[in-house]
Amino acid sequence: MIKTYGYAAPDFQTNPQPFDFEHRTPGVHDVHIEIEFCGICHSDIHQARNEWGGSLYPMVPGHEIVGTVKAVGSSVTKFKVGDKAAIGCMVDSCRSCENCSAGEEQYCTNPGMVGTYNARDKQGNLTFGGYASDIVCDENYVLKVPEGLDLAATAPLLCAGITTYSPLRHWGAGEGKKVGIVGLGGLGHMGLKFSHAFGAKTILFTTSASKIEDGKKLGADEVVLTREENWHEPHAGSFDFILDCVSAEHDINPYLRLLKRDGVYCTVGLPEDPFKVAGFSIIGRKYMTGSMIGGIRETQEMLDFCAEKGIVSDIEMTSFEKLDEAWQRVVKADVKYRFVLDCRELRK
Amino acid sequence: MIKTYGYAAPDFQTNPQPFDFEHRTPGVHDVHIEIEFCGICHSDIHQARNEWGGSLYPMVPGHEIVGTVKAVGSSVTKFKVGDKAAIGCMVDSCRSCENCSAGEEQYCTNPGMVGTYNARDKQGNLTFGGYASDIVCDENYVLKVPEGLDLAATAPLLCAGITTYSPLRHWGAGEGKKVGIVGLGGLGHMGLKFSHAFGAKTILFTTSASKIEDGKKLGADEVVLTREENWHEPHAGSFDFILDCVSAEHDINPYLRLLKRDGVYCTVGLPEDPFKVAGFSIIGRKYMTGSMIGGIRETQEMLDFCAEKGIVSDIEMTSFEKLDEAWQRVVKADVKYRFVLDCRELRK
Repeated sequence: MIKTYGYAAPDFQTNPQPFDFEHRTPGVHDVHIEIEFCGICHSDIHQARNEWGGSLYPMVPGHEIVGTVKAVGSSVTKFKVGDKAAIGCMVDSCRSCENCSAGEEQYCTNPGMVGTYNARDKQGNLTFGGYASDIVCDENYVLKVPEGLDLAATAPLLCAGITTYSPLRHWGAGEGKKVGIVGLGGLGHMGLKFSHAFGAKTILFTTSASKIEDGKKLGADEVVLTREENWHEPHAGSFDFILDCVSAEHDINPYLRLLKRDGVYCTVGLPEDPFKVAGFSIIGRKYMTGSMIGGIRETQEMLDFCAEKGIVSDIEMTSFEKLDEAWQRVVKADVKYRFVLDCRELRK
Repeated sequence: MIKTYGYAAPDFQTNPQPFDFEHRTPGVHDVHIEIEFCGICHSDIHQARNEWGGSLYPMVPGHEIVGTVKAVGSSVTKFKVGDKAAIGCMVDSCRSCENCSAGEEQYCTNPGMVGTYNARDKQGNLTFGGYASDIVCDENYVLKVPEGLDLAATAPLLCAGITTYSPLRHWGAGEGKKVGIVGLGGLGHMGLKFSHAFGAKTILFTTSASKIEDGKKLGADEVVLTREENWHEPHAGSFDFILDCVSAEHDINPYLRLLKRDGVYCTVGLPEDPFKVAGFSIIGRKYMTGSMIGGIRETQEMLDFCAEKGIVSDIEMTSFEKLDEAWQRVVKADVKYRFVLDCRELRK
């Protein structure tokens, strides 16, 4: 077994505390990674606090994991000791359903992907995430980190990055397309970078004037303040694609009305309450949909693209000592734009 | 001017009453049609009663119009006197916006299609619909009725028909696809006929056991009763396309969960209240959208397809004398499956 030092939430009312545990001895297909950095995602907090229901404890959060390969099983072909490697939101899936076969393991239907934490693996054991010193994972769910990327700033690509990259790619953000990004936070700032890098005309929608400058620096051609009256009118019916990165409740009907015929509005923010969608907002073949991370192949494609274009996340480094404060600031959306934990300090 | 005898609602509280009016003298591009039959659409009632707001009076309803060409303008090339012709939900549009140019005039953005009734034409005059003896319309918005189709049963194709044909075609209903039709009324019964004719595996969702037999006759391979507990479970994640024809409020989340990845749920029912859509219902790239009738080219394509396959609407003939009763029965969904008015009785 692999002795591991981490932080776990013992129940829904308590923030993560020091927690020692063991990962399985690597099997022939497994990679053992010494974790160097792990990003803090808002969903870590939602799940630790059981805000989506069904949480499993003790919970070691963290699904934006980068580190160095320490050991590989005898059948592993993609990795060798010393490689930089990464793990995102899943560590396994059925590998045979229609979605897995299509390389869209995140939508596995049999019965669903195995989450990196807050899930049970095929043996029924709890999975433990990246707020820890080590992790063991089947090589098929491990990504290669290309050379040249800052390792700490790469961690958030594994969730915030792929969550925005995948829908922007899937719905064809690129030259000649007009793309909206709603909200400038961890997801939104990556959405701006990717949409801009793909060559789309990129418009940021935000409620706060203080974000105009940052928005433009991050890749927005234009910033629209959605607190102003009739803000949507100049853009009605003109967007090919809108990626909504806001997780707070908000009225999405104005965004649907910004779409062209056959245009797509996609949420990755997932507010708690249902969206209220007026029939007249969608009736001109305007699509509302939602996307969740991306498949393993696409995640690797994203990392390679990031290396080629020099794209990483804007981060603030933090430590386990300051975890409570960091979580508090994530809840207040007071971070530019992603916290990253230094997991090397956990190594005993 | 063309002296016309019809029925008009004088205000939102009064059902249509006898009303004489005039249509313009046909211009060089116009076709003058003597109306023989006009279908009764639930939207006639919604609009006469101002249930969608903004209604214009006096209102001569009716947008499922078939008849015989009585005269044509000097530049008309598509029609000659004596031809059977039809008019659906629109009589004009801007003809130059992106949607008009694409043959999707129903989504005209500049400023929108001119409705067959309850609208103003480009000269600012009220348009009057098919509860009347005559109509005058630019030939570009008039359809040819192919030979061999029963004329009265063809009338509902102009709204109920194209409203279901267009989305089923657009989203590829056909061989190897699993298609759901929600609700068996005027729209649903045409949806079943088309989906079956296109070769899709067609499942009807209905709340009433009394509709099982009819559903199967009309083309359903299977009928699912949505009052039964867990009715959706056996079909979760298996549908390519679902066409929701229900205009009463209902929970659409179970239908979204029936979709495969990249599957599409399309409403043509347009309930008054907003849809409530859970984020988790759409997150696997499941699309929610809405469709409205179809373009002129596609409406003609549908009529030709119907002639080829022998498809018409199931109708009950009625008369202006019994209009109040017919409207009452439409509101109660007590019609198999569309009322058609005989407009020949109006001719003086």
